[in-house]
Amino acid sequence: MTTVFAGIATSLDGYVAGPNPTLEEPLGERGESLHDWVFGLEVWRGPHGLDGGTTTASSAVVEERIERTGAVVMGRRMYSNGEGAWQDDPKADGWWGDDPPFHVPVYVVTHHAREPLPKEGGTTFTFVTDGVESALAQAREAAGEKDVAIAGGASVIQQVLAAGELDELQVDLAPILLGGGTPLFGSGVDGNVELDSVVDAPGVTHLRYRVLR
Amino acid sequence: MTTVFAGIATSLDGYVAGPNPTLEEPLGERGESLHDWVFGLEVWRGPHGLDGGTTTASSAVVEERIERTGAVVMGRRMYSNGEGAWQDDPKADGWWGDDPPFHVPVYVVTHHAREPLPKEGGTTFTFVTDGVESALAQAREAAGEKDVAIAGGASVIQQVLAAGELDELQVDLAPILLGGGTPLFGSGVDGNVELDSVVDAPGVTHLRYRVLR
Repeated sequence: MTTVFAGIATSLDGYVAGPNPTLEEPLGERGESLHDWVFGLEVWRGPHGLDGGTTTASSAVVEERIERTGAVVMGRRMYSNGEGAWQDDPKADGWWGDDPPFHVPVYVVTHHAREPLPKEGGTTFTFVTDGVESALAQAREAAGEKDVAIAGGASVIQQVLAAGELDELQVDLAPILLGGGTPLFGSGVDGNVELDSVVDAPGVTHLRYRVLR
Repeated sequence: MTTVFAGIATSLDGYVAGPNPTLEEPLGERGESLHDWVFGLEVWRGPHGLDGGTTTASSAVVEERIERTGAVVMGRRMYSNGEGAWQDDPKADGWWGDDPPFHVPVYVVTHHAREPLPKEGGTTFTFVTDGVESALAQAREAAGEKDVAIAGGASVIQQVLAAGELDELQVDLAPILLGGGTPLFGSGVDGNVELDSVVDAPGVTHLRYRVLR
């Protein structure tokens, strides 16, 4: 059965992007350091078209996420320019390039209708204008026996959680304090979770929670 | 050499107390559930004058904190009525009772001068009106070869961190979302930390960080 899961890097103080995002730093000040643990991994570099890399305790975590993912849901800002949006151009083609790392159908929740955008390597961006639940339904359909990954940003994860549709939350807890930025959880975001597993890896702690209903 | 450490229970969304604290719920709505993992432990119940209890992977964590602690620093609200203060009476004698669980000197950072208050079992509350650094200096002196524990609340921990005096932060991460309350880290709280160890225990994940300077 299809599981809906989110996996997102978060600072110790709970931010998924740092303060003051700009064109040069779309993830905000020091926000990119949230992902330091992943950039060197072979299992991450491959799908991003990069050679080489290392293997750590994080590799199996990343690999499992890639293998189980049959479709992706993301917000418009994550599509167009990452979590800490520095611009609001709905036609911006995003930072994902010609060969995005997803290699599966991606459903972008947006207010701006546009034609589906096929890319190389199996990624097609489909723009969904009738809400996150519609995007989820389409992603479930596309995923078949595989799972649906909520790629973020925080707002989409919160919406899926609030809709009672999130089955699993994977927090990649980076040992940094950003002091501000985009919080993973907003005020009023509620829910019951249960720890499933912990993986202690270089530069990150992977916490996997089941969402209880 | 004396180490200054803080150990505090925090929700997955980063709160050390829930929303809307009251007389009946000084830790706010569902805030007490942050500590569910500890109430049943024999190693916690003993110092609190309670019989029985269980032993889990948390027991060694709690035991080590008790053993290394030679003095405690806490804020006025944690002294008088817990983190989620529901009253502001500076003369309130607190919820700690006649035999507080500390059994070492406790330095309370407050604006209200009063005489030291000796209690049973080795706890003496000393009220420090000239700031957190003064309280820390007195606690270091009292601790001798042992360590200084910052008991909270969040504000005092932030002050000690900002003063560059925190050596170690232990976050007892409870698998709950409180949706609001008192955040452990405020906006603008900055710092560099490095993960030291992870202990996966029933109902809690103990994350121990070194603070880097």
